[in-house]
Amino acid sequence: MAEKIQGVLTPTLVPLDARGEINEAEMRRFYGWLIDKGVHGLYPNGSTGEFTRFTVEERKRIVKISCEVANGRVPVLAGAAEANVKETLAACEAYHSYGARAVAIVSPFYFRLSQESVYAYFAEIAKNSPIDVTLYNIPMFATPLEVNTIRRLAEFPRVVGIKDSTGDLSFMMRMISAVKPDRPDFCFLTGWEAVLAPMMLIGCDGGTHATSNVIPEVTKQLYEMCKAGQYADAMKIQYRVLELFDVMLLNFEFPDGFRAAADLRGFNLGRGRQPMSSTQQVDRTALQKVLQCILADFGFVGSPDSGCPTRTGNAPNDKLAQIVFEVLHELERRGVV
Amino acid sequence: MAEKIQGVLTPTLVPLDARGEINEAEMRRFYGWLIDKGVHGLYPNGSTGEFTRFTVEERKRIVKISCEVANGRVPVLAGAAEANVKETLAACEAYHSYGARAVAIVSPFYFRLSQESVYAYFAEIAKNSPIDVTLYNIPMFATPLEVNTIRRLAEFPRVVGIKDSTGDLSFMMRMISAVKPDRPDFCFLTGWEAVLAPMMLIGCDGGTHATSNVIPEVTKQLYEMCKAGQYADAMKIQYRVLELFDVMLLNFEFPDGFRAAADLRGFNLGRGRQPMSSTQQVDRTALQKVLQCILADFGFVGSPDSGCPTRTGNAPNDKLAQIVFEVLHELERRGVV
Amino acid sequence: MAEKIQGVLTPTLVPLDARGEINEAEMRRFYGWLIDKGVHGLYPNGSTGEFTRFTVEERKRIVKISCEVANGRVPVLAGAAEANVKETLAACEAYHSYGARAVAIVSPFYFRLSQESVYAYFAEIAKNSPIDVTLYNIPMFATPLEVNTIRRLAEFPRVVGIKDSTGDLSFMMRMISAVKPDRPDFCFLTGWEAVLAPMMLIGCDGGTHATSNVIPEVTKQLYEMCKAGQYADAMKIQYRVLELFDVMLLNFEFPDGFRAAADLRGFNLGRGRQPMSSTQQVDRTALQKVLQCILADFGFVGSPDSGCPTRTGNAPNDKLAQIVFEVLHELERRGVV
Amino acid sequence: MAEKIQGVLTPTLVPLDARGEINEAEMRRFYGWLIDKGVHGLYPNGSTGEFTRFTVEERKRIVKISCEVANGRVPVLAGAAEANVKETLAACEAYHSYGARAVAIVSPFYFRLSQESVYAYFAEIAKNSPIDVTLYNIPMFATPLEVNTIRRLAEFPRVVGIKDSTGDLSFMMRMISAVKPDRPDFCFLTGWEAVLAPMMLIGCDGGTHATSNVIPEVTKQLYEMCKAGQYADAMKIQYRVLELFDVMLLNFEFPDGFRAAADLRGFNLGRGRQPMSSTQQVDRTALQKVLQCILADFGFVGSPDSGCPTRTGNAPNDKLAQIVFEVLHELERRGVV
Repeated sequence: MAEKIQGVLTPTLVPLDARGEINEAEMRRFYGWLIDKGVHGLYPNGSTGEFTRFTVEERKRIVKISCEVANGRVPVLAGAAEANVKETLAACEAYHSYGARAVAIVSPFYFRLSQESVYAYFAEIAKNSPIDVTLYNIPMFATPLEVNTIRRLAEFPRVVGIKDSTGDLSFMMRMISAVKPDRPDFCFLTGWEAVLAPMMLIGCDGGTHATSNVIPEVTKQLYEMCKAGQYADAMKIQYRVLELFDVMLLNFEFPDGFRAAADLRGFNLGRGRQPMSSTQQVDRTALQKVLQCILADFGFVGSPDSGCPTRTGNAPNDKLAQIVFEVLHELERRGVV
Repeated sequence: MAEKIQGVLTPTLVPLDARGEINEAEMRRFYGWLIDKGVHGLYPNGSTGEFTRFTVEERKRIVKISCEVANGRVPVLAGAAEANVKETLAACEAYHSYGARAVAIVSPFYFRLSQESVYAYFAEIAKNSPIDVTLYNIPMFATPLEVNTIRRLAEFPRVVGIKDSTGDLSFMMRMISAVKPDRPDFCFLTGWEAVLAPMMLIGCDGGTHATSNVIPEVTKQLYEMCKAGQYADAMKIQYRVLELFDVMLLNFEFPDGFRAAADLRGFNLGRGRQPMSSTQQVDRTALQKVLQCILADFGFVGSPDSGCPTRTGNAPNDKLAQIVFEVLHELERRGVV
Repeated sequence: MAEKIQGVLTPTLVPLDARGEINEAEMRRFYGWLIDKGVHGLYPNGSTGEFTRFTVEERKRIVKISCEVANGRVPVLAGAAEANVKETLAACEAYHSYGARAVAIVSPFYFRLSQESVYAYFAEIAKNSPIDVTLYNIPMFATPLEVNTIRRLAEFPRVVGIKDSTGDLSFMMRMISAVKPDRPDFCFLTGWEAVLAPMMLIGCDGGTHATSNVIPEVTKQLYEMCKAGQYADAMKIQYRVLELFDVMLLNFEFPDGFRAAADLRGFNLGRGRQPMSSTQQVDRTALQKVLQCILADFGFVGSPDSGCPTRTGNAPNDKLAQIVFEVLHELERRGVV
Repeated sequence: MAEKIQGVLTPTLVPLDARGEINEAEMRRFYGWLIDKGVHGLYPNGSTGEFTRFTVEERKRIVKISCEVANGRVPVLAGAAEANVKETLAACEAYHSYGARAVAIVSPFYFRLSQESVYAYFAEIAKNSPIDVTLYNIPMFATPLEVNTIRRLAEFPRVVGIKDSTGDLSFMMRMISAVKPDRPDFCFLTGWEAVLAPMMLIGCDGGTHATSNVIPEVTKQLYEMCKAGQYADAMKIQYRVLELFDVMLLNFEFPDGFRAAADLRGFNLGRGRQPMSSTQQVDRTALQKVLQCILADFGFVGSPDSGCPTRTGNAPNDKLAQIVFEVLHELERRGVV
């Protein structure tokens, strides 16, 4: 039996070039760095990887490159949801041939289905997939998976785990209670990184965390502290991760905040494929400075030249304070003040 | 200037063969019949057409066939949303070359975007599309379009209308108030056919109605009565349409109820691409008999051999009553009662 | 059998004095004026009447005064929801003795109950009330009433109608389809005045409209046009009512916008009981000027001295434009410009 | 400065007699037992105490009795929300005079207010209350309190804490991040007992837990383990508490499941004030047997005579299994099987 998927997997961002095409060289450099920094796996074609904004061929290419970079050092969990069961199974075949450890399949989206239909959909996949399947529950974007449906799907040996992005601890506990007695090998991953430590406490095996694109060293450390039972120390880190996470999540259009922060670590992610208005572009510049200040606290980058105002934890305020700092700095530079 | 889009357009169902592939011959026969029965346009690749369950190539083929069948007799409004702006514009080009009158582009889905991002998305398309664009607002499935965003987008000449599936009359009135003064040519279509008559009363130009796949004669009549100001009579028909609509919508996984009903009109739509559990298949058979009873009232088909119990308007009850009738009929047939 | 409740009933605002106590003299003057202007009934203790912000004794006093002012000229529909069934029945007794035509009882709120519990609650009231009962469905504030529950409750002769504040036309049509065949006398009132005309078209008997506190002449005219089948003309008025309604509803804390507008008709409603922050008080002044401009268009009041900028239908913008006008006017007055 | 509120406070159920009146003798016996079993405080007039279903006078009486029973042994946190600010302040005065430690005031309900209005409401109370105030956030029933509003309200010294019933850990962490730096004395209580242990881990001071009406010994133990940093052991108990909690919460109308379970501990809570349909009464009997089986596992009561089937964690299934056991037992008793 294959090893259980666990630890912090990175739902990888996709570097793009100036024309919006996949920047393969930067992608290889970036994913290699993530593995070097200690992430426990790569998770291409997740929400953070904006899978819906790529073509079928691009999604395949992304997984192929990921598997090549991983090269057996860490497992690859490949997002494989396509237009329908037949296309999804074709992706499963392909990813299996590339050497992925398992696929992750998001619950049907656009249409919101009944639980019976969600069951029928995954059952059809589970019966025919040549590769292990993890369910992906993200009710804010796709049809919710209820506990009883997950329990029924866990009867298929091919279904080896779930990635749940609700961040709802009681829901996760209900899921674990319902599934674990009959499937002790089942893997529970949280996609809501703001609460990794508490999720580990209640029995999760890890998570797929967008923030690990930016601070892989910290998310790895957080995970290891939890594994060692050092929850009090882990929570100190968790609070700092939350601050970074919130600025990236709540003030940019997802996942552009994560792209902006990864750039600060020395990569060139490029602009995402969702167009930005001019207002949004101005905002982005100010917010990236706030991100730089947070990353400077972690010790990963230097502070902006213009300096860092005291942060309040209220990002819109922090953005304004940063803009004031920028203006003052510029005036100083010009000898005005 | 091109003619305003108006009337009842059919968001066409897609006939599939036993292997789940597009049944082109049946598609041509079915779409031709719709036009013969008087629908004012074809709307391929809508939600009813399950556009998300087809591949890029299939979506193109569907529009191409639709344009060929329409052959200038009625306009084709082609759903053109693809993975990103670039792919969407490619679809616009293709559909323009096939002779479509306009494209309909659903608001970004899966991710829920801010209004600013929705604006940026459609603005980019509006600036570059070679074909007229109608916005498609369906908040239950995709990012909502707010009135102010619609008003801003209506500043682009390429944006010629909106299809709104909320069924919310005050929202539609707010939209009309905000847009019509500056764009008297703007086209307002409702996608919520349960209230076509009231929507016409408040100023809509028509709608894209799934029910017109099943009873095109009736939806056309309903529209014409409204155009003639005969609202009291129109409402009598509207209530009958609602009964049919509710059985198809609320008791099957969308749009399978519409597929089941279109079959009763003499077509072979085949099973949709979303798998069904065995429970769902049993349900479908009983519900299709209920649909037959409703269509028999309209005079379009005969009653089931087993007869039609009195309908209560409560579909689960009606389904049970129908099952009892079926069993009794079978027992009679066997000489038991 | 008592006459069916129909027409436009006013969910009456409650005038308060400077200490926040009921201003009885103003209340009598205001309610008398409403009846003189032609409203078809008074509806004290509705949401517009902020029933939850008064004590049990105050609610009784409000109904008593309403019945005295009405004095048989128009029916009084009295909001009678209290802490529990026993207290609610006590209110029913009292309101019956004051001469109310019927009571309106909102679905249980705070707790969100199952439909079975909602049924049990109203059934207990229906069995014991000495006065006719109308159900009150307002899902944004209280437990929703589903069609089947309404149908079951319509089996009690004491339950004579429903006031529905969803503004959802297909829901209202489903309700009418389910209830009317067995209860042709059942009264359907809409509480969503933005769509009174379409609601009349589909078969409603009228509505309880907060706006009739401000422009009773117009809401009465709108109703009468609908009764006469003059829907096209009615819609012209309906659009103007919507503009007023939206400014009052969307830009003030409910129902303070209605209070501010009623003041402009020559009454002294006073501040509501919900405290206002200083920001909100500044806003209120600017918005009341926008209201004055709209009411001036109706011909009910003069324009503000500072004049009325062109309205855009976008209230925040209109508020800003008005503030600019105010400032300019003040500068002119001081001879600055 | 008064001592910080911490630990597990019981949101006390209210024993009623056969006529639905407060059963004072049983109330005194029950609350005394809770204190004897170690709960850290009493919290009358919470949601579990069904405060909305009692009259103003009854709510006062409930707090008075609670203070008398507590008699200084444990603090009393008294729910004091009334119809408006003036009435609420009157309750604050009364509860202060009875010796309550603080009041808990739920965010305004029925109407859903803007954050600015929620702020104005609590600010008015905070400025005038003679007794410490804890905010009560329960978005499923009342206007939500956002982090920034809580931060602003924490500037009032009278506001000493918050009880949050969302069960959302990232929200609680954001709240703690925003408030604690300036108010290290501020008290954070969770009302979502399914996750007490993780909430303690992230820095909560305890909770107000309905389940402590039923198993005060266990909730106390759970709290103490968390205080001692024994999280792994605490989680084992937390999972067992969750099973009990879910049966009580998800299968009865709240809080009747808690009433049914407290009865099993030897009290006579009586029926709640919300009427039950006959179907609900039958259900209640079967479910109470399931509760008895769970409490028997804890060792607090004996098993039902009819025995306990294996539980699946799926309450509807467990209820059916229990009914089968009951029927078999009855047949055995009659010598049929």
